[in-house]
Amino acid sequence: MIQKVLIANRGEIAVRIIRALRELNIKSVAVYATVDKDSLHVMLADEAVCIGDHKLSNSYLNQNAILQAAVNTHVQAIHPGYGFLSENAQFAKACKQLNIKFIGPSHELIEIMGDKQSARETMRKAGVPIVPGSDGLVDTLEDAYYESSKIGYPVLIKATAGGGGKGMRVCHTQNDLKDAYNQARREARNAFGDDSVYLEKYVANPRHIEVQILGDSHGNAIHLFERECSVQRNNQKMIEEAPVQNLSTQTKEKLYAVSLKAAKAIRYESCGTLEFIMDTDERFYFIEMNTRIQVEHPITEAITGIDIIKEQIHIAEGKKLSFMQSHIKALGHAIEVRVNAEDPYDGFKPQSGRIQGIHFPGGNGVRIDSYVYQGYAIPPFYDSMIAKVIVHAFNRDDAIEKAIRCMEEMDVEGITTNQEFQLEILLNEAFLDNKYDTSLVRHVLETRVK
Amino acid sequence: MIQKVLIANRGEIAVRIIRALRELNIKSVAVYATVDKDSLHVMLADEAVCIGDHKLSNSYLNQNAILQAAVNTHVQAIHPGYGFLSENAQFAKACKQLNIKFIGPSHELIEIMGDKQSARETMRKAGVPIVPGSDGLVDTLEDAYYESSKIGYPVLIKATAGGGGKGMRVCHTQNDLKDAYNQARREARNAFGDDSVYLEKYVANPRHIEVQILGDSHGNAIHLFERECSVQRNNQKMIEEAPVQNLSTQTKEKLYAVSLKAAKAIRYESCGTLEFIMDTDERFYFIEMNTRIQVEHPITEAITGIDIIKEQIHIAEGKKLSFMQSHIKALGHAIEVRVNAEDPYDGFKPQSGRIQGIHFPGGNGVRIDSYVYQGYAIPPFYDSMIAKVIVHAFNRDDAIEKAIRCMEEMDVEGITTNQEFQLEILLNEAFLDNKYDTSLVRHVLETRVK
Repeated sequence: MIQKVLIANRGEIAVRIIRALRELNIKSVAVYATVDKDSLHVMLADEAVCIGDHKLSNSYLNQNAILQAAVNTHVQAIHPGYGFLSENAQFAKACKQLNIKFIGPSHELIEIMGDKQSARETMRKAGVPIVPGSDGLVDTLEDAYYESSKIGYPVLIKATAGGGGKGMRVCHTQNDLKDAYNQARREARNAFGDDSVYLEKYVANPRHIEVQILGDSHGNAIHLFERECSVQRNNQKMIEEAPVQNLSTQTKEKLYAVSLKAAKAIRYESCGTLEFIMDTDERFYFIEMNTRIQVEHPITEAITGIDIIKEQIHIAEGKKLSFMQSHIKALGHAIEVRVNAEDPYDGFKPQSGRIQGIHFPGGNGVRIDSYVYQGYAIPPFYDSMIAKVIVHAFNRDDAIEKAIRCMEEMDVEGITTNQEFQLEILLNEAFLDNKYDTSLVRHVLETRVK
Repeated sequence: MIQKVLIANRGEIAVRIIRALRELNIKSVAVYATVDKDSLHVMLADEAVCIGDHKLSNSYLNQNAILQAAVNTHVQAIHPGYGFLSENAQFAKACKQLNIKFIGPSHELIEIMGDKQSARETMRKAGVPIVPGSDGLVDTLEDAYYESSKIGYPVLIKATAGGGGKGMRVCHTQNDLKDAYNQARREARNAFGDDSVYLEKYVANPRHIEVQILGDSHGNAIHLFERECSVQRNNQKMIEEAPVQNLSTQTKEKLYAVSLKAAKAIRYESCGTLEFIMDTDERFYFIEMNTRIQVEHPITEAITGIDIIKEQIHIAEGKKLSFMQSHIKALGHAIEVRVNAEDPYDGFKPQSGRIQGIHFPGGNGVRIDSYVYQGYAIPPFYDSMIAKVIVHAFNRDDAIEKAIRCMEEMDVEGITTNQEFQLEILLNEAFLDNKYDTSLVRHVLETRVK
């Protein structure tokens, strides 16, 4: 069994994992970059190993240093958290070769799900609805015209090696196609050294809905309901909700069914998330699968009472899932508000520096996951999220009131945060009415009084 | 309807109430003693009124100053919290005369339940088991001999005006009676100016079990299950659990039934708690009813999902209970650990002074109710409790692991707290085995390695 785990991460998720390990009586080893020596995950872990300087390639992406630390501290497993090496198939494979359990799915599955085209193809075969698109790459402009007319405009041109919006173009009519196609390929070549592109139906202002799943090494798979993650800025989630209240039971059942079918088809092992876009008619399409824990997992924990990280560790130990599908009920409504050190009114520019004082909200139905404290200096090198405030109440209205109270109560001195902007969203009419999609943040920014 | 509430309290319960009010969109008015000007409840309330200096009779027990503040700030209601004026019938009556709603039961009920003898008699009539004892006061030594032989030794001699153990004597045999009786009367006369005493069967090392109830002004009453509060020092609770795991379903059902019967008999309105002592054969006896919110209410909130403070405010507004008995389920196990600024190894001596640094535990299943922060100076005049750490998990074992993790993680610099001692209890074999009673703390103190 696992007696000691190295956490190949930093920030709140490292703290989250250390807490779970401690409650399971498993020892923890933190790794850290030199600038993170005063970080909470370093203080809370049983052991801590410095793996390099602030440069990502020297520390949190430095596979050799992390594996060396794992060997030196005699851990049986590595938890990658999210981001960094969590979806790096090569790293998962290197762990395996060292006989260290990578807490996540097999490196083969990570590889398949990491490539957009192979993930799409795998899901299509498993019966998951995918966005209508070209069957494979589109190598010539003539093919592009043909496939686009078959799919129907508007279409989206996407680089298969893509990410962060690079090599991506929306094309509304046939007249735009030539320029868009050439631009997308050129951009992809420059960004990734690979100009392969494919086509997809473009869904304007979709909702972002995702399904949490858990699978064990015995072939069992369960879902833990869905999350609405349509409050996004620059494709990054800001506020998430579970369950989704304005969605028909039929659609929900269909979402669960296809997610479970997919999980079983690929014999998925660990926690994972299937992400979908959804149009106004509740038609949904698979966009990607995250083969790791997600930032927003606590809202699912709140409504189900299941500790996903502990379950993930149990799965890695070869244990069966602790629950059958019929045991799991969704109770109440949960909302996660991400508190970022950033200036939403200056293009969400990240902020760094010392926190002079901090007060976290508390009380009934409030969970705080954070890694910062009074006197802590936020380094400028990492993600700007400093805390997750998760609220849980009987219904959506009560949960929103609680989230508003928490954003008003939370007080960070010395650093600009997004709290004021989060309050604008929580108080926005479309949000309150639960009639919003991924265009909400843009609308709030555009319509605010300057 | 209530639009503004004055909170006649301080510390964590004042913060707790302000948070609930904020989520209900009700304005809050804090009152504070001069030494409390930097207290969190003052900062979080919409308004704050200084009502006097640190002396209790000048501030938190100063009815005139509090009522004046209520009138000046035009509140519709006063929430008394716990302690201070929360069970003061005269204060509740004064509120009524000013047409200000006292958030609690009527002053008549507070009065009945405040007097030990009348509470006992009321409960007996309602069919609640009371400790066998003298029917009324025992005015002569001859009566004492007669009643004691009827009840059976050991007996407890109690002052009807009593409290804090004053005017109370255990008497194991007939030979002890004369001295004990005379001592108890003398002590009662000196302490309360009233030497009336009565007799009760003495239950050695009982368990302390209590039932949370809610009643509305429409005659509805529900129970929210039970709590085990046997971890006590000097008759003060230190750790509480809900629900009670080592209790037969039969006994639980009987506890609920008599509590509901009592609540309905007295048409109880507000939240309240019936406290019982229980012997090793699960025989239980009513000891007192608290006609107010209790410190340990969050564990009941954790397992039921019901916000007791909000429900209490709704009841004060004349609304019906939001739930019927059949809606309420107990899920999982919750434990509250009270973090006190005190030295358990020096007679639980209270500590005061400045908190140099503080880290609260967080994460999944952890709720923090506190009013202190880094840089806050704990005044020496009030209760030593600085935080409540409430954990909630699927079962008792997991909840204990979480409580242990939290006590290890919580870090208060500059002030001695009882965390180390709380850890001793949480790791104690009798506690872990769930085989403990109110003698646990004494045993832990006696058997610890010096």
